[in-house]
Amino acid sequence: MMKLHFLGTGCMMPTKERNHLATALEYEGEMLLFDCGEHTQLQIKKMKLALGKFRKIFISHWHGDHVLGLPGLLMTLANTQGIEEVEIHGPKGTSDYLHHMRKSMIFDSKLSLKIFEHEPKEREILTVDESPEYCIKCVKLNHSVPCIAYSFEQKDVRNIDKDKAKLLGLEQSPLLARSKLGLDIELEGKRIPSEDLTYVKKGKKICFVFDTRPCLGIDLLVKNADYLIMEATYIFDQHADKAQEYDHMSAKETAEIALRNNVQNLVITHFSQRYKDTKDIEAEAKEIFEKTCAAYDLMSLPLR
Amino acid sequence: MMKLHFLGTGCMMPTKERNHLATALEYEGEMLLFDCGEHTQLQIKKMKLALGKFRKIFISHWHGDHVLGLPGLLMTLANTQGIEEVEIHGPKGTSDYLHHMRKSMIFDSKLSLKIFEHEPKEREILTVDESPEYCIKCVKLNHSVPCIAYSFEQKDVRNIDKDKAKLLGLEQSPLLARSKLGLDIELEGKRIPSEDLTYVKKGKKICFVFDTRPCLGIDLLVKNADYLIMEATYIFDQHADKAQEYDHMSAKETAEIALRNNVQNLVITHFSQRYKDTKDIEAEAKEIFEKTCAAYDLMSLPLR
Repeated sequence: MMKLHFLGTGCMMPTKERNHLATALEYEGEMLLFDCGEHTQLQIKKMKLALGKFRKIFISHWHGDHVLGLPGLLMTLANTQGIEEVEIHGPKGTSDYLHHMRKSMIFDSKLSLKIFEHEPKEREILTVDESPEYCIKCVKLNHSVPCIAYSFEQKDVRNIDKDKAKLLGLEQSPLLARSKLGLDIELEGKRIPSEDLTYVKKGKKICFVFDTRPCLGIDLLVKNADYLIMEATYIFDQHADKAQEYDHMSAKETAEIALRNNVQNLVITHFSQRYKDTKDIEAEAKEIFEKTCAAYDLMSLPLR
Repeated sequence: MMKLHFLGTGCMMPTKERNHLATALEYEGEMLLFDCGEHTQLQIKKMKLALGKFRKIFISHWHGDHVLGLPGLLMTLANTQGIEEVEIHGPKGTSDYLHHMRKSMIFDSKLSLKIFEHEPKEREILTVDESPEYCIKCVKLNHSVPCIAYSFEQKDVRNIDKDKAKLLGLEQSPLLARSKLGLDIELEGKRIPSEDLTYVKKGKKICFVFDTRPCLGIDLLVKNADYLIMEATYIFDQHADKAQEYDHMSAKETAEIALRNNVQNLVITHFSQRYKDTKDIEAEAKEIFEKTCAAYDLMSLPLR
């Protein structure tokens, strides 16, 4: 079971209702953290998420509301049993910012940071991390500073069709492992292709897009995503000019991206402090893309 | 009216109940901030304190739980109308830490920082700031890293005794301003000394002592304080060894300092995350020094 945890859904000026941005994707034994605004470590505690599972952090860009929680979280992780190393991914400049962050206070921990800087070209999709079960890709965004979006892509898996295995009397057979890998097996002299015993479960694709104006890179990255988690800082009908001025998205523009890219579910976040609640912003997106949900602080979303 | 605002009362590991350390002293139109742990900017908003009044910040030392809220607060102050400059006081190294802090993310504000580094010798009391109404002093503490305590000392003021002024028919006289300054005045050929028309209102002394083991400097600084705000991280009866090991105070030791220095009121803070509530820690201090109060997050204390 995968889950999304929304640790903060605000933007530069946090409010009582909305913390700086941070979103965690829970995947099996791992917590993948996308951005880390101020106070993220305490939001993690409030949601009772296991600190020991946070080993990979993906930074979109180095504006304060996306990174101010990093030093506190890293200090806490340094004091969490069993954690010796944390991976940090980010755009050009990430090593430098982290160098200064560690020198901006007394940080005498033995935690080792493995730092990855990614610099995709316009419209280029780069793979930045790969495990046997998933890969993570990134694309360049259109913001005032170097900024990238990420896509988590679970690999397809071949599962045994239990009914078919039963028919062939193979329920407990060690041959099934071979079939699961996509290989043919032989049963009493008869070749059984993997396709006859298995079915393919399609992996999920979940995209994280903060902060940007619309650009072709986004469309390339989010095509057919199961879940698109994307900023929608403003209401187009009220502040389209602000979205332009500050290089952000309006709910309308974000919903249009979801619509034209065959996205299954859209979750909007990173709301301007000027909106007391998110009713109107969600409504604007829903008019264009029905399957929209406005995230709120401490919301957990199990992924179907 | 002066007030103390407790924005955070925890230590290195924040909890749901206790934020990283930060204490504000409200004095007339000013907010003097002592230490600035992560999330301080939002605690300020929660307490509805005027951001525009925060112009002076006093840092005890550069451990994360005392400074991680600085970049976020400075960014917010940079966006607060009318603030162009913020004073930051701290121990040796403060300029360097701030230099790196500003380079640890994208910080493109025009806010100017006026930085003051203080390096008092053992047992030396240094004046670090002075206005017509108060002065602020510091002393060296006994912690694992350079660390200083501060004392806010309001100056004595001479007020007109209205009854005496009335008897002499001077209620509205411009001569009163002279008398208030401590100078003699002449009335119908008769010299009236200032003492006959005025009384002295003693200024308050409020001390802020975080993080330290007991040392002579503290006694010198806090002598006769009206309010002593001091760390009491541990309960002596349970964790005297931890207090030693981590260079902190236990409630018993802090209360003894208040007692032997004729302090009027003791407020303890900076509690270890191991204590769910502060009942026992307050009780231990009260056994020695009755006028003790354990601070809690978002507590406001008007000073009598």
